[in-house]
Amino acid sequence: MQKKTIGIVGGGQLGRMFIQNALNYDCTIHCLDPSADAPAAVYAHTFVQGKLTDYETLVNFGQACHILTIEIENVNTAALRTLQAQGKTIIPKPEHIELIQDKRLQKQFYKAQNIPTTEFLLTENKADLRLHASFLPAVHKLGREGYDGRGVQILRTEADLSLGFDKPSVLEKLADIRLEIAVIVARNAKGEIVSFAPTEMVVNEEANLLDFLYAPARISATEAKAAQDLAETVVQKMDFIGLLAVEMFLTKDGQLLVNEVAPRPHNSGHHSIEACESSQFEQHLRTIMDWPLGSTKTRSCAAMLNILGAEGYEGEAYYEGLEDVLRMSGVFIHLYGKKQTKPFRKMGHVTIIAQTEEEVFSKVKKIKQKFKVITSKK
Amino acid sequence: MQKKTIGIVGGGQLGRMFIQNALNYDCTIHCLDPSADAPAAVYAHTFVQGKLTDYETLVNFGQACHILTIEIENVNTAALRTLQAQGKTIIPKPEHIELIQDKRLQKQFYKAQNIPTTEFLLTENKADLRLHASFLPAVHKLGREGYDGRGVQILRTEADLSLGFDKPSVLEKLADIRLEIAVIVARNAKGEIVSFAPTEMVVNEEANLLDFLYAPARISATEAKAAQDLAETVVQKMDFIGLLAVEMFLTKDGQLLVNEVAPRPHNSGHHSIEACESSQFEQHLRTIMDWPLGSTKTRSCAAMLNILGAEGYEGEAYYEGLEDVLRMSGVFIHLYGKKQTKPFRKMGHVTIIAQTEEEVFSKVKKIKQKFKVITSKK
Repeated sequence: MQKKTIGIVGGGQLGRMFIQNALNYDCTIHCLDPSADAPAAVYAHTFVQGKLTDYETLVNFGQACHILTIEIENVNTAALRTLQAQGKTIIPKPEHIELIQDKRLQKQFYKAQNIPTTEFLLTENKADLRLHASFLPAVHKLGREGYDGRGVQILRTEADLSLGFDKPSVLEKLADIRLEIAVIVARNAKGEIVSFAPTEMVVNEEANLLDFLYAPARISATEAKAAQDLAETVVQKMDFIGLLAVEMFLTKDGQLLVNEVAPRPHNSGHHSIEACESSQFEQHLRTIMDWPLGSTKTRSCAAMLNILGAEGYEGEAYYEGLEDVLRMSGVFIHLYGKKQTKPFRKMGHVTIIAQTEEEVFSKVKKIKQKFKVITSKK
Repeated sequence: MQKKTIGIVGGGQLGRMFIQNALNYDCTIHCLDPSADAPAAVYAHTFVQGKLTDYETLVNFGQACHILTIEIENVNTAALRTLQAQGKTIIPKPEHIELIQDKRLQKQFYKAQNIPTTEFLLTENKADLRLHASFLPAVHKLGREGYDGRGVQILRTEADLSLGFDKPSVLEKLADIRLEIAVIVARNAKGEIVSFAPTEMVVNEEANLLDFLYAPARISATEAKAAQDLAETVVQKMDFIGLLAVEMFLTKDGQLLVNEVAPRPHNSGHHSIEACESSQFEQHLRTIMDWPLGSTKTRSCAAMLNILGAEGYEGEAYYEGLEDVLRMSGVFIHLYGKKQTKPFRKMGHVTIIAQTEEEVFSKVKKIKQKFKVITSKK
């Protein structure tokens, strides 16, 4: 019963960490990724190089697997449906991946289900967008295939309308945000459900950019419970199985609004490897195996800092300051084994635990000063 | 500088967990093991099937590596010396592996260095052993190639002398033991040294057998410090580099006596994965990379229970009660991916953390009742 072969569609860092955790069990894991030196490639029982969006490739890959899961949304869901019809277990379900692939469908789902979210309009093209100047300030998001900041454009004034997208998109009113948080929820086929304490996106006030993540979020116990309840509600209303990361805004007037969801392990859950009793990768595995879910108990407050390729460097990665960071206690380095660095490429992350928030923040500051991904020193 | 290829000699569970941790860095790891389905095989960048005791095999394996380390003592040290002469870094050093391979040399080393250990005699054969009836009760240990209980015989009375070994052995006076403990020490080439809090072997009083391990050991702070100091002294006096597990007796009159050492990650350090800031596998990696050593700080008290193949079952492994254990909080399962079970084979381990010793012990009891490795249910 336990000897089920798992296929993971995508072999990036999320796939790598998924396999790293699954090593604790007697699992056989196959992996598909377009890149031969994908971070997870060497750790899969069988690695197949191929496009995740190609129907034939994905159907062929799935033949050797009992269960298929994903580590990225941009996959061929028609292939997953075919595999499902063949009797394979697909987690998350293809229809959920499709819902999430399209930000327009996602927003309509929230509205239909009375899930609080920012007010929005659908736009089909630029001409259409120009009719909605009165809706600004707003954020314009490409319906499909936007990711990691691409396909998202803030439109503050009428003059900004030219920056909008000429394809089907969604225009969302800017919320008056106090804090951005995320809650990761796991649910298995039996319907068991657990969620992690909210993670907070700590913003660099000067640059107005994400600085690092901190968990548990610095919000009241009531707010934290409301956020976990809301995230679980989203999962229940979707009848979702697997791991769902629910990104939310906490507004200045104390409202929680669902922003976006991701149907897989998420950046906002990386700290759980060291800071929680079960990590998000462990919960993901348990959901696809239909095992009892793990304890999400917090063992320590923690920060998670993404390690990005430094600006001005492109080539073989060199980790400057690695030894300085290794010398710090309560600091956990995770490099993704990517051979080539380029500006802002996610090369790894560092988790920092300590007794107090102050101590965590001071360590984060030190690591940001010391640790840089540049190009190889010979 | 960081892109050094590591070769690990042996691909059992220790090699598997070594690679699992090294995944956090950008390391390339090759692995050698006689068994094609060794626990670590699939996770190595390159896996070579071959005998660890064969000179040619080991020398050939080492050619692709900058650094070589071991996960088992029974390796061809002449080959390691050849590789060292070729400019490879060998950690631990071949002379330390040789010292530890021979229990007679080990005991003589302790004596020469004034390291407290049980009184002993060397015996060459059975005839020789018979001359030492007055030295009993004692334990007779085969000088070389005894392991996991093999090559160890307790001799209580003159009648037992016939059970002794006919090869070069060591006869050690039985100590009046209050507790068996172990301290794991890491030391890098720069001479930096750290040690973990002592682990206690918890004995099943009825069966008089090792039941599970508990850390930190239930001894006074003074005793713990003395144990760590003694273990570090052993490492310093050997000028050892790498990870050394120092097994000790704490006698009823409060004396610490070094029993045996192992030059590699050790069963008594498995709990460190979840219970300490840096695991023994992380420290091992840091010693061989000559990186700064990690914090050995205890995050939680913990027990470590070996999961052995149940008596009466031989064949494809089936983990009975797995879901019951998954349902418990603070419990971490580590299966080694061994396909075949047989009585007493180490198939995995479980680490248990909790706020209190009582809670840890009660969870251990429950797991022992529920979790069994039997043969496949179809």
